[in-house]
Amino acid sequence: MRLSRYFLPVLKEAPAEAEIVSHKLMLRAGMIQQLSAGIYSWLPLGFAVLKKVEQIVREEMNAAGAIEILMPTIQPADLWRESGRYEAYGKEMLRIKDRHEREMLYGPTNEENVTDIFRRHVRSYRQLPLNLYHIQWKFRDEIRPRFGVMRGREFLMKDAYSFDLDYEGAKRSYDNMFVAYLRAFKRMGLTAIPMQAETGPIGGNMSHEFQILAQTGESAVYYDAAFEQIDFNAPDLDPEMLRSLYAAADEKHDPASCPVPPERLRSGRGIEVGHIFYFGTKYSKPMGAVVMGPDGTEVPVEMGSYGIGVSRLVGALIEAFHDEKGIIWPESVAPFRIGLVNLRPDDAATTAMAEELYMRFTAMGVDVLLDDRDERAGVKFATMDLIGLPWQVTVGPRGVKEDKVEIKSRRTGEREEVTPVELLERFAG
Amino acid sequence: MRLSRYFLPVLKEAPAEAEIVSHKLMLRAGMIQQLSAGIYSWLPLGFAVLKKVEQIVREEMNAAGAIEILMPTIQPADLWRESGRYEAYGKEMLRIKDRHEREMLYGPTNEENVTDIFRRHVRSYRQLPLNLYHIQWKFRDEIRPRFGVMRGREFLMKDAYSFDLDYEGAKRSYDNMFVAYLRAFKRMGLTAIPMQAETGPIGGNMSHEFQILAQTGESAVYYDAAFEQIDFNAPDLDPEMLRSLYAAADEKHDPASCPVPPERLRSGRGIEVGHIFYFGTKYSKPMGAVVMGPDGTEVPVEMGSYGIGVSRLVGALIEAFHDEKGIIWPESVAPFRIGLVNLRPDDAATTAMAEELYMRFTAMGVDVLLDDRDERAGVKFATMDLIGLPWQVTVGPRGVKEDKVEIKSRRTGEREEVTPVELLERFAG
Repeated sequence: MRLSRYFLPVLKEAPAEAEIVSHKLMLRAGMIQQLSAGIYSWLPLGFAVLKKVEQIVREEMNAAGAIEILMPTIQPADLWRESGRYEAYGKEMLRIKDRHEREMLYGPTNEENVTDIFRRHVRSYRQLPLNLYHIQWKFRDEIRPRFGVMRGREFLMKDAYSFDLDYEGAKRSYDNMFVAYLRAFKRMGLTAIPMQAETGPIGGNMSHEFQILAQTGESAVYYDAAFEQIDFNAPDLDPEMLRSLYAAADEKHDPASCPVPPERLRSGRGIEVGHIFYFGTKYSKPMGAVVMGPDGTEVPVEMGSYGIGVSRLVGALIEAFHDEKGIIWPESVAPFRIGLVNLRPDDAATTAMAEELYMRFTAMGVDVLLDDRDERAGVKFATMDLIGLPWQVTVGPRGVKEDKVEIKSRRTGEREEVTPVELLERFAG
Repeated sequence: MRLSRYFLPVLKEAPAEAEIVSHKLMLRAGMIQQLSAGIYSWLPLGFAVLKKVEQIVREEMNAAGAIEILMPTIQPADLWRESGRYEAYGKEMLRIKDRHEREMLYGPTNEENVTDIFRRHVRSYRQLPLNLYHIQWKFRDEIRPRFGVMRGREFLMKDAYSFDLDYEGAKRSYDNMFVAYLRAFKRMGLTAIPMQAETGPIGGNMSHEFQILAQTGESAVYYDAAFEQIDFNAPDLDPEMLRSLYAAADEKHDPASCPVPPERLRSGRGIEVGHIFYFGTKYSKPMGAVVMGPDGTEVPVEMGSYGIGVSRLVGALIEAFHDEKGIIWPESVAPFRIGLVNLRPDDAATTAMAEELYMRFTAMGVDVLLDDRDERAGVKFATMDLIGLPWQVTVGPRGVKEDKVEIKSRRTGEREEVTPVELLERFAG
């Protein structure tokens, strides 16, 4: 993509309403634009990251055997009356009347909807286990939306729902998602700490939330240093072992009774990015979602639900990865892999080399953003540091004479002079 | 994907509420599930097609230089008061009050939102032309939703918005989208006829709608046979030439005055799947979206908008491509390319060959659905014909003995016996 043809409205100053660093940087980097309190438009750079995060979540869900569907945003109130949640859910539910005065709502979550799909089509335990997920916009009418996409009203969530014949099956499904979550966050470069959690309005008997670590996190967390040693790509990752490792939020952590020896205890600040629930028959029983078991008797299906805040993760990633100059994207979620700076668009040799590299990277399938604008070098470097692409490649007249370009790692700040051929080789394959 | 692990709730009979063939087949093939009038959940097979259609639209928009963003579904009423449309828009607009009694709405379209983004960030003609698009769910509260996803209330639309300094620029942007639309529909295997259209609630001075041809189409269309001869992949496709070809809806077609000689006149039935508008300064003027021109004076930006009904296209494709047995997907939008039928899961040699082929296709990146269910052959063939995958490959005990499998084209019905090696070669690369 050429910056001259892109839409990247960077700002020098963060608007006053932004309180936290991710919100400030998302506004400054032209990633989002507020439309109304807690409701944002995703501009091209923000949209690109959102899609990358979404795709990692999708791939890990698919790898775990979950099947993607898409449920609508608007749901009928009657469905929520069946589960008893329509009255119970507070003012965070956006309630709507359609033109025929029918009561509807903008889904804050989809347990009822997916249970309805299940009960209409599944009859036998032979069709189990089943895990259906979707990635869809939700709405929660927060009384005081804040922190940009971290606590918005309209937000993108991945929610998966598992169906099993019995507790043992449900437990396997829960474990399966538990591990998939840790893998997904790891692929984004994040260390996620799973913690026992309250079940809240979803209800249920077992629940974990996943906090990713960031200096600017919203709450203190304490955890076993062993978390930092685990290979989350191991095929046989054991959820029981992982859950046995100590992890506690501030309010539950008691140094006096903490089972982890002090030298192994770590503390940090966490941001919740995922939450999983086992809730058994809480929805299947009132809604009549039953399956015939092997013994011929009908039983309500055992369910769990599993959420990841996809749009929230974009903010959380910035909280975890930034410095005073801007964002530092991990490669897996970067909107472009390389920022290619043409230092002197008015110089023919410089432009020829920059254009050649741009063309070659594009042909190689490497996402590159070419700064071909007629701007001062300082502006270009500041823009690249702000938007945080992992690699900055600078092409300037002096280097061109020596057949050299400069490559800089945004994360480490290390710079190196390489020939264009070496540069291309580095990003090949 | 293994059918035994997939979620494909096919139905023997179409529910009574389905009036048209696409609605019937989408329900029978387990593609969608109604949640409320005009509101559907997309089950795995339907979701897969929806994503394929969306991706073709996305690629053609990107190829045309449009830039993807994502605007929210919920918008503040005040923004629509600026354009004057809040009061003007009828009961099809879903109006909402949030917990603070602020008036909101579920966007039926996004001209106001995108104009707001533009006016906040663009100042100079140098940043033009600009074309921003998104693919997002919309809501129109149809008084009588019907025909499944063809006239739903919650629907997925691609809407693009162009910004130019003057009429000439706006015309180029319009032409650009005009051609991109024809290419996109062609990639889906559809013949689209562009027709001059009324501008309706979007307003404006120039407008075309795109009708795709299907025997079961909603309205009669008349067009120049030359449309069938055009190479829509030609790089220099001329929009003026295309617009000069005769095309008219039933109510505008007058045989007496029709300029096309009878031997070149074709008639068919059409389904509207796209609509493009040039409307100049209709939104930019009241909303103050101005740019500085080369002469230093500020002018309201010239705009157009360009919609494609992404979810509607899934239904329209079925209207265009089906027979009495079910759906016949064009390869470009098929949920899987191959349906691989293991005729006898209880036979070791048959299963070994079916599994081997499944593994190889998967490794080759060919989307394949393996029917590994313990079902009668007749049920399996009927399912494959119903869901309409382009190629059916059957592995049975008799063929296995001779190192042969059968491949059938869903479209032509032609069958052929080939060796597994020949089969794999056919789908390689």
